[in-house]
Amino acid sequence: MFEKSKYVERRQKLMSLVKQGVILLLGNKEVSLNYPANTYSFRQDSSFLYFIGLDIPNLAALIDVEKNDVVLYGDDIDIEDVIWMGHLPSIKDLAALSGIEHVKPFAELAKDLETFSSRKIHFTPPYRNANKIYISESLKMPLAKLKENSSVELSKAIALLRSVKDADEIAHLDEIMAFGYEMHVTAMKMAQEGMHEQKIAGAIEGIALQYGARVSFPVILSKHGEILHNHHHNNILKKGDLLLCDAGFESNMGYATDNTRTIPVGGDFSQKQREIYEIVLKANNTAIAMSKPGVFYRDVHLASAKIVAEGLKALGLMKGDIENAVAQGAHALFYPHGLGHMMGLDVHDMEDIGENYVGYDETVQRSDQFGLAYLRLAKKLQPGFVLTVEPGIYFIPALIDMWKAEHKFEQFIDYDKVETYKGFGGIRLEDDILITETGCRIMGNNRIPITPEEVEETVKSACKAK
Amino acid sequence: MFEKSKYVERRQKLMSLVKQGVILLLGNKEVSLNYPANTYSFRQDSSFLYFIGLDIPNLAALIDVEKNDVVLYGDDIDIEDVIWMGHLPSIKDLAALSGIEHVKPFAELAKDLETFSSRKIHFTPPYRNANKIYISESLKMPLAKLKENSSVELSKAIALLRSVKDADEIAHLDEIMAFGYEMHVTAMKMAQEGMHEQKIAGAIEGIALQYGARVSFPVILSKHGEILHNHHHNNILKKGDLLLCDAGFESNMGYATDNTRTIPVGGDFSQKQREIYEIVLKANNTAIAMSKPGVFYRDVHLASAKIVAEGLKALGLMKGDIENAVAQGAHALFYPHGLGHMMGLDVHDMEDIGENYVGYDETVQRSDQFGLAYLRLAKKLQPGFVLTVEPGIYFIPALIDMWKAEHKFEQFIDYDKVETYKGFGGIRLEDDILITETGCRIMGNNRIPITPEEVEETVKSACKAK
Repeated sequence: MFEKSKYVERRQKLMSLVKQGVILLLGNKEVSLNYPANTYSFRQDSSFLYFIGLDIPNLAALIDVEKNDVVLYGDDIDIEDVIWMGHLPSIKDLAALSGIEHVKPFAELAKDLETFSSRKIHFTPPYRNANKIYISESLKMPLAKLKENSSVELSKAIALLRSVKDADEIAHLDEIMAFGYEMHVTAMKMAQEGMHEQKIAGAIEGIALQYGARVSFPVILSKHGEILHNHHHNNILKKGDLLLCDAGFESNMGYATDNTRTIPVGGDFSQKQREIYEIVLKANNTAIAMSKPGVFYRDVHLASAKIVAEGLKALGLMKGDIENAVAQGAHALFYPHGLGHMMGLDVHDMEDIGENYVGYDETVQRSDQFGLAYLRLAKKLQPGFVLTVEPGIYFIPALIDMWKAEHKFEQFIDYDKVETYKGFGGIRLEDDILITETGCRIMGNNRIPITPEEVEETVKSACKAK
Repeated sequence: MFEKSKYVERRQKLMSLVKQGVILLLGNKEVSLNYPANTYSFRQDSSFLYFIGLDIPNLAALIDVEKNDVVLYGDDIDIEDVIWMGHLPSIKDLAALSGIEHVKPFAELAKDLETFSSRKIHFTPPYRNANKIYISESLKMPLAKLKENSSVELSKAIALLRSVKDADEIAHLDEIMAFGYEMHVTAMKMAQEGMHEQKIAGAIEGIALQYGARVSFPVILSKHGEILHNHHHNNILKKGDLLLCDAGFESNMGYATDNTRTIPVGGDFSQKQREIYEIVLKANNTAIAMSKPGVFYRDVHLASAKIVAEGLKALGLMKGDIENAVAQGAHALFYPHGLGHMMGLDVHDMEDIGENYVGYDETVQRSDQFGLAYLRLAKKLQPGFVLTVEPGIYFIPALIDMWKAEHKFEQFIDYDKVETYKGFGGIRLEDDILITETGCRIMGNNRIPITPEEVEETVKSACKAK
């Protein structure tokens, strides 16, 4: 964890934003896999990590905003447990690491919440069932009411603070980008004829584990990149396949990386693949070049969409007036998702408290147009924001069939030509950027190979090594 | 999954054992990691896998015992989702794989449970919070009452059926032992001076992932093998360290392996290490030689304890009458856990429904003696049981200090001598066996290297390869 002064300072800022009431920060508990004692690997709640810093289950904190008082709740292991678990720091010692003076046994929390029942108790929408049950029982609130009873003030305050990364967070993120780099370059080198997708997916997740860490989300690695929510790794790779790899590293402090590369199996892009690839790469590079303080990320998204549409028009897949096509959302047949999202202690940063507090504000409302509606970040960029840039082009058979049957955007889409791309798959290219005072930069020391030449060379470097 | 006839047959047997009422088999749901959409890798409930076979979230089955009727509840993905998830089989098609004719949308389950409210509804104790909430709400039962309201008849019937593995299960288990072998031999080869524990732990978990599978429980890999509930991997290995590795593979059908080896870092046991190692190995081999149908596993445990105590007496760590020492539990200072447990679809098989139904019966009661009380399997062995054999010797500073201060078993323990072993660590040697008609056999084609010579040779084979 960071120095304790950082957590003290973050809590002071939180209190000054929330202004009144009591803030409940519930840490996460262990989750059972197939019986109570067999648990998934522990993941602390991100806001608890941000304001308290302790990566241990079964803790909670109450922040009395008006009294400027913080209490950490948790139980020391008893002397019997020392036999099985070794000596562990006391709750008192743990609290000190976070600059907290007052500690109480966990069972006191429910009593203290009862004492505070006449005051506003702020909590964010719980996403773990154990915490849902806890809040429901201790605040006497039906489970179905927790989300609407969660605190908008607290969610907005957290979004405000966590969105702007400080120098230590940026240094840490820059450092861990090297592990994401290693994962992706490994995937490229393994993308050879006859390889099983799950071998690569397991190998790159294994890299994260070997650094005492984990992947920041389930690895997406598939020659069917056009299936966007695809977490299966069942295919054997063949020459001519395009392998889409979307994967990130999560550090033992909880910070995420998130990159996507699309790899020609065996190392050679076909002409058809390279043409589409170059469009996506141009969309990515253009979006990065545009990203700077004061720019609406929705506008960066739309600029990337225009490049996609222009590129597809040049190939005969789209037609007509491109400004108009993008304004109406015709490009979303090929590019049906948003350009990117905030990233930090969560790979989709603070998605638990709500994308509308994180990616939108009073200056920009979520669109209901297919494609644009999925944009996670639309508001003005600020220095210290860390976000992803991830345009893509996909040929999704089910979506093509649906739109074609509806004669949708026939003035902009050449469906006969599109038919000839069925089976192409999908291409996405994703980088992580930091918004600086004057513009932005790609995070980490080295950008993961991204030009067609770099990617081809990386894939082939493994063959030479054999 | 297996052929559908197997699931039909298992459900018939279950119905004939439970005799009346309605059996609710709830499948597992996805679990959120740090926000709702970011989930842990899915793990289906083991009894659901055993009786239904479908490894997909958000399913449930109701078995009407008296009507001999089975209904599978689940929701087809809608046409919109096909765009994101590709074409997936319908619930009807999935049900057919399990030999089930009747399917209903998931929302119908709550209504059907209401219809059956005058009849006995059998369920096992839920261990996932989502299923606790579901049962609590649909059966109108407080969360705190679920365990006591769960069905003893159902738990006993499941224990009876799942305890005896059939030929297909045995063949599958024999096959996946090779992956556990690969994990352990990899750990041995990596156990070199200067290596970080987490590198090894991550590498062997990565092996499981590369086979499209997972580890059957969080890897225990530590030079502090004496800390039994130790899941940290923070140490750097040094020559002279003993590295304890307790790890298992879980297949994509849900079946587990579970082995432990203890490895001299760099490849050479010291004299002192080898002396303790040979005692544990003898205890392991003797226990395997004794295991056969009709023998109480408690007696096998006690025989292994006697070998441990005799060996420690020969080294001057214990003294006095060994029969008596073991009867009173003095050996538990060094060997404070049970000899083993049942294994199958869970690494601790059916621990969710209760160890007392799985490892004990009316012929044998759980002891309350320190050490023996932790024995998970005590009852008579039967052909088809799959279980672990895992004796160990540990020098646990906190436990030694506690007993010494209490002058506990001074007639059996030479505490001065024991003091000279503080810092030794711990040794455990664990194999998986199948009880046959006439005795038992170690599962898999090859026993993981276990003699001191085999282990030393395996560790050193990596050095040569460099």
